[in-house]
Amino acid sequence: MNFNRPLILASKSPRRQQLLKEAGFHFSIITKEVDESYPDDLPATDVAAYLSRKKADAFIDDLEDSVLITADTTVKVDTEILNKPANYKEAEKMLETLSGRSHEVITGFTIKDRFKQITRTQVTRVSFKTLSEEEIAYYISRFEPYDKAGSYGIQEWIGMIGIERIEGCYFNVVGLPIHSVYVELEAFN
Amino acid sequence: MNFNRPLILASKSPRRQQLLKEAGFHFSIITKEVDESYPDDLPATDVAAYLSRKKADAFIDDLEDSVLITADTTVKVDTEILNKPANYKEAEKMLETLSGRSHEVITGFTIKDRFKQITRTQVTRVSFKTLSEEEIAYYISRFEPYDKAGSYGIQEWIGMIGIERIEGCYFNVVGLPIHSVYVELEAFN
Repeated sequence: MNFNRPLILASKSPRRQQLLKEAGFHFSIITKEVDESYPDDLPATDVAAYLSRKKADAFIDDLEDSVLITADTTVKVDTEILNKPANYKEAEKMLETLSGRSHEVITGFTIKDRFKQITRTQVTRVSFKTLSEEEIAYYISRFEPYDKAGSYGIQEWIGMIGIERIEGCYFNVVGLPIHSVYVELEAFN
Repeated sequence: MNFNRPLILASKSPRRQQLLKEAGFHFSIITKEVDESYPDDLPATDVAAYLSRKKADAFIDDLEDSVLITADTTVKVDTEILNKPANYKEAEKMLETLSGRSHEVITGFTIKDRFKQITRTQVTRVSFKTLSEEEIAYYISRFEPYDKAGSYGIQEWIGMIGIERIEGCYFNVVGLPIHSVYVELEAFN
């Protein structure tokens, strides 16, 4: 697809930037500070979509001819959401929670221009083997996953040796379901 | 895991080399020419394991204390195996075959030393969206997937924009089910 309009990615995530670039898009990066709180009674599955819309709402009158992409990724275990870990102890606790079981990675993204807006959600189920204390300790101290929801990157060491199986889109776990973004962008071209 | 024995990867694939390296292993690369034919009546699901054993058989008396890893990846659609495409036309035909449906990527790997040998197989189901003629033509001419079984790399442009879903190990599709290799290597340490 030759995408002919100015494209803005509103995300600081180097992984999202790389995915969109490798999918062949040219874009600018503009980020705004957004309060990432959400209503207590929002179903966990809807949080990522809600936050991607909230990030898009920060761009109102300044889009001109541009097309904007925002995204949010959450990690959900049962009904609990794991955010970014604040410190070593939190990262350790999250990885212990994920060890030996399945969880869901949910990415919501919003695409908008002056005239229209769409939001999509993708869910990928991820299954970790039982992680040893040593593996968790090595990973956290070596990779410092403090910028990652759920405390891990699937493309990093712990994802390579620890994830037995996924069901869904791999790149969704990295941070952006790029095949879905590609399809939806066609309607904005 | 601190793997303390000399490790040999018998594969020219830069993707397998990278996966094993990122999983934290130090190893040498030694490849031997092996005839990659297999019996006509071998079930398609068993071809990758069979070829990984055949590659391992080429190392007989020269292992000393080393541990050897060999692997083979096949792409299976229904009962047909797609090998590496010989030219543009074959690559085009393979991608047209994979378009809009699911197939299986099967990697067999063998680990052996002087005393024992194990072979394991991993299967990942991969689902492509319907690919347009333009997408197929762009990918082949730009990425020249002539070293890839089934004519695609999941980590390349066509995998990013074209694969809607996988079931199983992602790295298995890249060329080596690294979590499984990691687990099995423990018995050789």
